[in-house]
Amino acid sequence: MAMKGVIASAVRTLASSGSSASSTTFTRHLHASAGSKKIVGVFYKANEYAELNPNFLGCEERALGIKDWLESQGHKYIVTDDKDGPDCELDKHIPDLHVLISTPFHPAYVTAERIKKAKNLQLLLTAGIGSDHIDLKAAAAAGLTVAEVTGSNVVSVAEDELMRILILVRNFVPGYTQIVNGDWKVAGIAHRAYDLEGKTVGTVGAGRIGKLLLQRLKPFNCHLLYHDRFKIDPELEQQIGAKFEEDLDAMLPKCDVIVINTPLTEKTRGLFDKERIAKCKKGVLIVNNARGAIMDTQAVVDASSSGHIAGYSGDVWNPQPAPKDHPWRYMPNHAMTPHISGTTIDAQLRYAAGVKDMLDRYFKGEDFPAQNYIVKDGKIASQYQ
Amino acid sequence: MAMKGVIASAVRTLASSGSSASSTTFTRHLHASAGSKKIVGVFYKANEYAELNPNFLGCEERALGIKDWLESQGHKYIVTDDKDGPDCELDKHIPDLHVLISTPFHPAYVTAERIKKAKNLQLLLTAGIGSDHIDLKAAAAAGLTVAEVTGSNVVSVAEDELMRILILVRNFVPGYTQIVNGDWKVAGIAHRAYDLEGKTVGTVGAGRIGKLLLQRLKPFNCHLLYHDRFKIDPELEQQIGAKFEEDLDAMLPKCDVIVINTPLTEKTRGLFDKERIAKCKKGVLIVNNARGAIMDTQAVVDASSSGHIAGYSGDVWNPQPAPKDHPWRYMPNHAMTPHISGTTIDAQLRYAAGVKDMLDRYFKGEDFPAQNYIVKDGKIASQYQ
Repeated sequence: MAMKGVIASAVRTLASSGSSASSTTFTRHLHASAGSKKIVGVFYKANEYAELNPNFLGCEERALGIKDWLESQGHKYIVTDDKDGPDCELDKHIPDLHVLISTPFHPAYVTAERIKKAKNLQLLLTAGIGSDHIDLKAAAAAGLTVAEVTGSNVVSVAEDELMRILILVRNFVPGYTQIVNGDWKVAGIAHRAYDLEGKTVGTVGAGRIGKLLLQRLKPFNCHLLYHDRFKIDPELEQQIGAKFEEDLDAMLPKCDVIVINTPLTEKTRGLFDKERIAKCKKGVLIVNNARGAIMDTQAVVDASSSGHIAGYSGDVWNPQPAPKDHPWRYMPNHAMTPHISGTTIDAQLRYAAGVKDMLDRYFKGEDFPAQNYIVKDGKIASQYQ
Repeated sequence: MAMKGVIASAVRTLASSGSSASSTTFTRHLHASAGSKKIVGVFYKANEYAELNPNFLGCEERALGIKDWLESQGHKYIVTDDKDGPDCELDKHIPDLHVLISTPFHPAYVTAERIKKAKNLQLLLTAGIGSDHIDLKAAAAAGLTVAEVTGSNVVSVAEDELMRILILVRNFVPGYTQIVNGDWKVAGIAHRAYDLEGKTVGTVGAGRIGKLLLQRLKPFNCHLLYHDRFKIDPELEQQIGAKFEEDLDAMLPKCDVIVINTPLTEKTRGLFDKERIAKCKKGVLIVNNARGAIMDTQAVVDASSSGHIAGYSGDVWNPQPAPKDHPWRYMPNHAMTPHISGTTIDAQLRYAAGVKDMLDRYFKGEDFPAQNYIVKDGKIASQYQ
């Protein structure tokens, strides 16, 4: 796959997401004293893959491609993938770091305890979208700023969701498995493979990603439903042809396919427990690229084993990395991957550019693009409340 | 996955494809003498899967659900999956069958030799689309009629193609493989995972399936190209935003993703040989749900091994079933399945209804829907020439 145009596309997308929008009033929202800052970045390690693609910016080895830029300004930039356990590298730097950069793909869990120890900490940046790995209440109470690169990978995730819908509806995985195992049993796939056309697809959450998914589903001639706190703009709603469902539990039994597109908050943690899954249609297909903890882990396993859930696909787990014995690895009819949907090369270029932009503004004492803030001045963004 | 609405949908689709359109002039296009006919159906065997879904009509065990209907009219209906080799069941019936029904998923290869032996044969029906398993020249010379259920699974195949494009672009398969193997290496996937947005997708062939694919690709904001003998209707072309490429070899180097959507004919057999694959962009992704023999088998293996082809996905092979040692099973970066894209449950309901409709017309001496004919009155349909 060639990369021509990807960087230009990254710049365009950031521009349209407002990252480069100018603001007439710059306020010093951080206690950003002048001088050298200690910045720690936590990323997944690439090892032998690091050298295979010059645009692979999201790995530990490339660390968003900002090391030279930071050091040329006198800042210190520590990079690691070692984020968990009592003697991990991250914990060595917690007492004196000013900025912590992490990603949803290899999340540095920023607990209240870590925040308490981080006496110099001012800024927590998420390279990507989704800051639930941070204790946002504790961050707000401590006066920290938390920000994401909003918009940086919404297209990436929406595309991936549509892929997973089709993988489940078409029963792709057992087909692939047959081939690599030397088999050929069309019936083993075909007896539970369907067209997406004519089926009912409901998204739980219709924010940035949910809307992009609905737009991409439009030509498939499905019945499209969405549940959210807010109705979509009427013009867009009509263009997409999706129907608003105020009551989640009234929507679920109508859906052949359910896609989770809501952030992980106190309200959505464990939202899909045994009782709620039981409200879904027998044979439902579920796609979840949002967060693993929105599901009750064992309830998903049980419903997949009984056949009530006929297929489950996603890239999010609780916790991450998923341990070797995580039961979702072994339940029937799953199409799971590690957390990858938002870390395409295109997304990496965008969120690396977005993090650099915010660091630059931080050093200069300038505001970030408004939509990037998750915690600011002690307040948590509405989507996380 | 629930089936509500599927039968209604099958009926609607057939109606819209013209199968139930009335014709004012019925001509006796077949020498369909009155009385009992011997009909042979060749389908894949379902074994333990047969009982799992009442709509699983395409397997040998259900044989399109027309057995009682045929027998109630005094016809004989033999069903088998045993179609190859010197003593196969099919060959026992070749000398006296009147009608042979087969599918592209488990094709009965109707050679000139078999046609010569089939003294009573009048009608060859393909339950699905794609009649290249029949020697069409020999069939035309022998005065046989060959017909497909045109339109019965075009949506099914187009949806499946879009799934495969995303599977390759997003590098899904190694992600899934990591999970079932107990691994978690985001970098192993992310270093070669991309967004589809902004990439160039070209279809070789823009007939029924190619057009449906382009329509479904529209919201992905790709650059869409197509090569065909004919330009798409200008209004549709503008609506989809796809650009016509008269010269195939001029289109190929522009494409990040190439999708094959052309029938297998004398002109397209081996179309993608070593030289033509070399004309594609390095790192090209290829999706082929059309026919395996359009590709030079070894050239695909070599280019996948060298990395010139960065991913290859499809469900068609040469021959079918693919032998255990078929090299496409073992080449790098493939996402292959058995031939399944056109045999979803929805498609089975449609092509079963379409075959029944044509048999009914055959018994009554009525014409088939015009678009279904592949060979009629000694002439081969234009798309197979």
